Amino acid sequence: MKKLSRRNFLLNTGIAASTATAAVAIPSLFFTNDQKYTGRKLNIALCGLGRYASILADGFAYSEYCKLAGIITGTPAKAETWKKQYHIPDANIYNYQDFDNIANNKDIDLVYIVLPNSMHKEYTIRAAKGGKHVICEKPMALNAADCEEMITACKNAGVQLAIGYRLHYEPYNLELKRLGQEKVFGQVRLIEASLGYRTTDPGEWRLKKALAGGGPLMNVGIYCVQSSRYVSGEEPTSVTAQFGPVTDNKLFNEVEASIMWQLDFPGGLVSNCTSTYACGVDRFFASADYGQFELSPGISYGPFKGKTSNGELKFPDINQQAAQMDGIGKLILENKPLPSHIAGEEGLKDMKVIDAIYKAAATGERIMLA
Amino acid sequence: MKKLSRRNFLLNTGIAASTATAAVAIPSLFFTNDQKYTGRKLNIALCGLGRYASILADGFAYSEYCKLAGIITGTPAKAETWKKQYHIPDANIYNYQDFDNIANNKDIDLVYIVLPNSMHKEYTIRAAKGGKHVICEKPMALNAADCEEMITACKNAGVQLAIGYRLHYEPYNLELKRLGQEKVFGQVRLIEASLGYRTTDPGEWRLKKALAGGGPLMNVGIYCVQSSRYVSGEEPTSVTAQFGPVTDNKLFNEVEASIMWQLDFPGGLVSNCTSTYACGVDRFFASADYGQFELSPGISYGPFKGKTSNGELKFPDINQQAAQMDGIGKLILENKPLPSHIAGEEGLKDMKVIDAIYKAAATGERIMLA
Repeated sequence: MKKLSRRNFLLNTGIAASTATAAVAIPSLFFTNDQKYTGRKLNIALCGLGRYASILADGFAYSEYCKLAGIITGTPAKAETWKKQYHIPDANIYNYQDFDNIANNKDIDLVYIVLPNSMHKEYTIRAAKGGKHVICEKPMALNAADCEEMITACKNAGVQLAIGYRLHYEPYNLELKRLGQEKVFGQVRLIEASLGYRTTDPGEWRLKKALAGGGPLMNVGIYCVQSSRYVSGEEPTSVTAQFGPVTDNKLFNEVEASIMWQLDFPGGLVSNCTSTYACGVDRFFASADYGQFELSPGISYGPFKGKTSNGELKFPDINQQAAQMDGIGKLILENKPLPSHIAGEEGLKDMKVIDAIYKAAATGERIMLA
Repeated sequence: MKKLSRRNFLLNTGIAASTATAAVAIPSLFFTNDQKYTGRKLNIALCGLGRYASILADGFAYSEYCKLAGIITGTPAKAETWKKQYHIPDANIYNYQDFDNIANNKDIDLVYIVLPNSMHKEYTIRAAKGGKHVICEKPMALNAADCEEMITACKNAGVQLAIGYRLHYEPYNLELKRLGQEKVFGQVRLIEASLGYRTTDPGEWRLKKALAGGGPLMNVGIYCVQSSRYVSGEEPTSVTAQFGPVTDNKLFNEVEASIMWQLDFPGGLVSNCTSTYACGVDRFFASADYGQFELSPGISYGPFKGKTSNGELKFPDINQQAAQMDGIGKLILENKPLPSHIAGEEGLKDMKVIDAIYKAAATGERIMLA
């Protein structure tokens, strides 16, 4: 990866002042002229050691403000492996029974919930009651009502709650947000956002309704809801949705194989999205009055490719997980409140849209949101 | 444009035998080793001299089998201009009143209907009654019932009826068809096809319901219906649809500003399409079990850009209008029946889907087609 100074990065990429302010979230490891942070790191415990926890664990190597300090797992063998690999002290290793003892552990600042969706609420609330800040992976919970409980619990406990939206710290997506919200090509009229991959393992927890709450929409389609919202800078007023065909009866007997939905926004934009477990797709496209901008790939873990009506987009390929943890971690270390677009409020907003999408798909009706 | 032999073209591009057979439709002007056709050309009269008629007229310069021999127009000034520019004899110039006299004109073999949509039926039937073969521009008519009348009229008159689907003769789209129907990447699971442009002229006939029958779906969205059908090789079994927001009250008080629709196909494919007059978009994307293929741009007049999971697609950029007229013209000159996918039957199939899309958007209901 090419190293460049923060100053050159901003000049080269044409990030406007408004976005540059948010660039605190872009880890300074890309900016060799900057002084590197040498203060105390935020000690994070990962709760749930599945596939994505491993990706996060790798991200700590690139993190400036955060340290992998603890783990919570129900599988003793995993505890053993992780303990060795990441040098986790025994005192910072918990299972789901003794997890609440974390309240007495001054060595853990924040619990990062990476459990199956159905467990997000319980473990966020338990972590908050233990006095720990929380990052909860998306989707925040199974429905909007659960999100509200989680927000209240964290507020009452006096801890901060962030949702694991890695793309709020990703340069290509920050540029999408700028192009849309600053109306660089005029009012955006159409967004097409699609994310999916082919699932073949019937044992995957993401296919179980009780654990996942839903199919590809809950898991990856949520990013299409997110990008539609942050590119428009608006909240949708109504939604229609359709389930796609059941492509495999054995795999998709609890959650949808694919789903399409259309979000109407107040400014005269419609966003037509697709999310699927039947095949691969990873694309964001926006068309405005006087031009277009798109990424493909642009929603997964990168590297991304993008262009606008003015030419190719070129930004550094970053470690999304490190950038996200550092963006959140730095603010918490500084005792600053998290901005609402990365806090629990944001997860709640997405979940309200997702609740409406599922209701629209199930009933065939247009669901009003505003 | 690079000239290459037909043999090299087929070898270079990897067009399979099945598609290569259809390559008769690709004009031999691209194949310098081939003997050029020197026989009698098919004499075509263009009926309606609007914007697209001019594009077709330019296409004759690249045509091997067809000649612009006559015109039908309601505007005397246009008759004068065209007469001079294309050397049309006075005897081959008609207006809408004396058009039926074309029956006595042995110098005209075929009438190409390029009138506003609402006039397609009347002029197709009048041309057929005059004993002339017909190419009718898409959309074939205002609804499926009208299409059936047109097919019957041409059958009764013993003339052939083709629909102006230029992409059935376009190498990139022929390749899409092959990739989909031959399941080169397995079963196609998702198609996203979108075509639109920004309309700003309130005087445009395409915005008048009585003339156009509908908005962008009738005009350009029909190509997304087409590509979904020819890539799958199937007919959709059901459709859902949604009108987009009215982005301009003055422009869009008769027809839709934009429309999205979802077609379910029997093989387990869903096609999510958008057509709009609010902004520019031109893209076809397909994702199958084991790979993806896409064009962008890929539905307009070209030049096109495409890629698959295996790499870039590279085909000659052809004159789509010449290729289409030659594909049809050659068969008519040889007294061979037109294959159903370029005949009136094809226009009728699309119109049945379009009727269902409008019904689905208006009612919010899923419309069954099979």
